[in-house]
Amino acid sequence: MPFVRIDLGKQYSVAEAQTIGDIVYQAMTSSINVPADDKFQVITMHDENELIIPQNYLGIEYSRGIVFIQITLNEGRSVELKKKFYKSICEMVVEKLKIRSEDIFINLVEVSKENWSFGNGEMQYAPKV
Amino acid sequence: MPFVRIDLGKQYSVAEAQTIGDIVYQAMTSSINVPADDKFQVITMHDENELIIPQNYLGIEYSRGIVFIQITLNEGRSVELKKKFYKSICEMVVEKLKIRSEDIFINLVEVSKENWSFGNGEMQYAPKV
Amino acid sequence: MPFVRIDLGKQYSVAEAQTIGDIVYQAMTSSINVPADDKFQVITMHDENELIIPQNYLGIEYSRGIVFIQITLNEGRSVELKKKFYKSICEMVVEKLKIRSEDIFINLVEVSKENWSFGNGEMQYAPKV
Repeated sequence: MPFVRIDLGKQYSVAEAQTIGDIVYQAMTSSINVPADDKFQVITMHDENELIIPQNYLGIEYSRGIVFIQITLNEGRSVELKKKFYKSICEMVVEKLKIRSEDIFINLVEVSKENWSFGNGEMQYAPKV
Repeated sequence: MPFVRIDLGKQYSVAEAQTIGDIVYQAMTSSINVPADDKFQVITMHDENELIIPQNYLGIEYSRGIVFIQITLNEGRSVELKKKFYKSICEMVVEKLKIRSEDIFINLVEVSKENWSFGNGEMQYAPKV
Repeated sequence: MPFVRIDLGKQYSVAEAQTIGDIVYQAMTSSINVPADDKFQVITMHDENELIIPQNYLGIEYSRGIVFIQITLNEGRSVELKKKFYKSICEMVVEKLKIRSEDIFINLVEVSKENWSFGNGEMQYAPKV
């Protein structure tokens, strides 16, 4: 159910972008109770000048290696779970891909359970009556 | 007011993507009370490896023909209307384009009426005071 | 914290798209109390036929010069601030880039403060306990 958009620069390879996607998926299953195989992601590669960042925000310095991760998911996860989720993504991306931890930007958009159709025109998460 | 993002692989033509857009628009007007001519859509064509799907989720098998449809719209449609909307999109896409019904992924993001400007810097859906 | 997606046609240059981004940022700081340097934006350039618009909606006539601006930001701005924000973006874009005011489409998606990580895997806007 989380639908993940990953936007990053073309200095990365699509394989690297896929690895980021794998990590986001892994963090979802381990940190915020997303079921196995619930992995729907769209990667968009950009020219460098299509990604706009400040030099510095909240004391964090950004580089051209910025990775934008925007995740639409069901509402209701606690603040604690979300914290764990951000930390988990960041640690794994830094470890596996040597991307600067400052360059991992994450944003969640929460929706209600009825807002998904995973195929066949059905509302798979329909509320029980 | 619905703002529709359609992300799909380059094995499709832009004309096919536009037909999907036409169908989404048609389903909006017939199923969820969207007014005529309220048709704002962005198509993004992707290399095959930029679209990440599981082999199988909830018993549904996906293929490289996946079509992601993400729709931002005003909040407040009922579960029943949304069900009808998903079904309507899926049936028409399958019929007109022979896309596998399993490959139609739909996600709704709901916002409030004041969150739109349709041009001229105005808030056309401003709440009446 | 606002995360801005700008989608527009390739008849524009990336420099023009960046100018639109600069204006959106400037309007955010002057109209809706966004802090300095909080500027995170993704530009996506499209082939003309990937941007779908009606000829006319709510009496507004659109052209191929349409600019889609979708902004994810924290919830809670008043209707009045949002009105000022739309107006401010539109006026500056028209003035600086001679884009038709009818072609400035803006949509806000509101999220809660805990839904952001601006780097380092931290939740910088975590609610105070």
